Amino acid sequence: MFSNFESSGRHLLIDIRGIKNTDVICNKEAIFNLMNAVCEELDLGILNKNHFQFDNGAVTAIYMLRESHISFHSYPEKNFVAMDLYSCKQYENDEVLKHTASFIITVLGGSLDSDVRIIDRRF
Amino acid sequence: MFSNFESSGRHLLIDIRGIKNTDVICNKEAIFNLMNAVCEELDLGILNKNHFQFDNGAVTAIYMLRESHISFHSYPEKNFVAMDLYSCKQYENDEVLKHTASFIITVLGGSLDSDVRIIDRRF
Repeated sequence: MFSNFESSGRHLLIDIRGIKNTDVICNKEAIFNLMNAVCEELDLGILNKNHFQFDNGAVTAIYMLRESHISFHSYPEKNFVAMDLYSCKQYENDEVLKHTASFIITVLGGSLDSDVRIIDRRF
Repeated sequence: MFSNFESSGRHLLIDIRGIKNTDVICNKEAIFNLMNAVCEELDLGILNKNHFQFDNGAVTAIYMLRESHISFHSYPEKNFVAMDLYSCKQYENDEVLKHTASFIITVLGGSLDSDVRIIDRRF
């Protein structure tokens, strides 16, 4: 159905379950370090960084990027993180984003049954 | 595959094509008004609002919400907007989010062939 449309980029959704180290996902510095590493690896331009910490320690962090955005939401009470990376950058295939997802899951110590979805967005 | 998992919320992706009024999608106030209206309609709590305007008029706007986030990226040169609403709020069915998507597409004067996708995210 999309064959006539040009890609506006790929949207990576990662739902990371079974996170054992809830300290990391409540630590703003550790989260920013992770997001910085992703931006460096994918050569993404950071326009600004924002975060909010909830009373239970949960953190929401969002980077506005020259290429769109990256978001992080932790749910320490569920050992869960939902991350998104929407980038208008064009990659030859999905391997780069799959590698990024694996890197994030590894850093957070998430479960192998975490969900990694890559969605095409089209002009 | 998800039957054993509890929902962490729904993620609405809207790719809006064929936008005729590119003035609106380059106008930060109009964009914030739209995002405010969505938050009011869905009773979402705004934690902070950020935006960035590119040299060609394109606007990126992101609200950090108590319930997750809402993002807006315009591509005036393509008559295109990509919006996301990820909310951990639970709705009885998808009608509320579909109605929100229709409202946004109508306000922006987008094409009827715009893409509306609703994705389940699970703990």
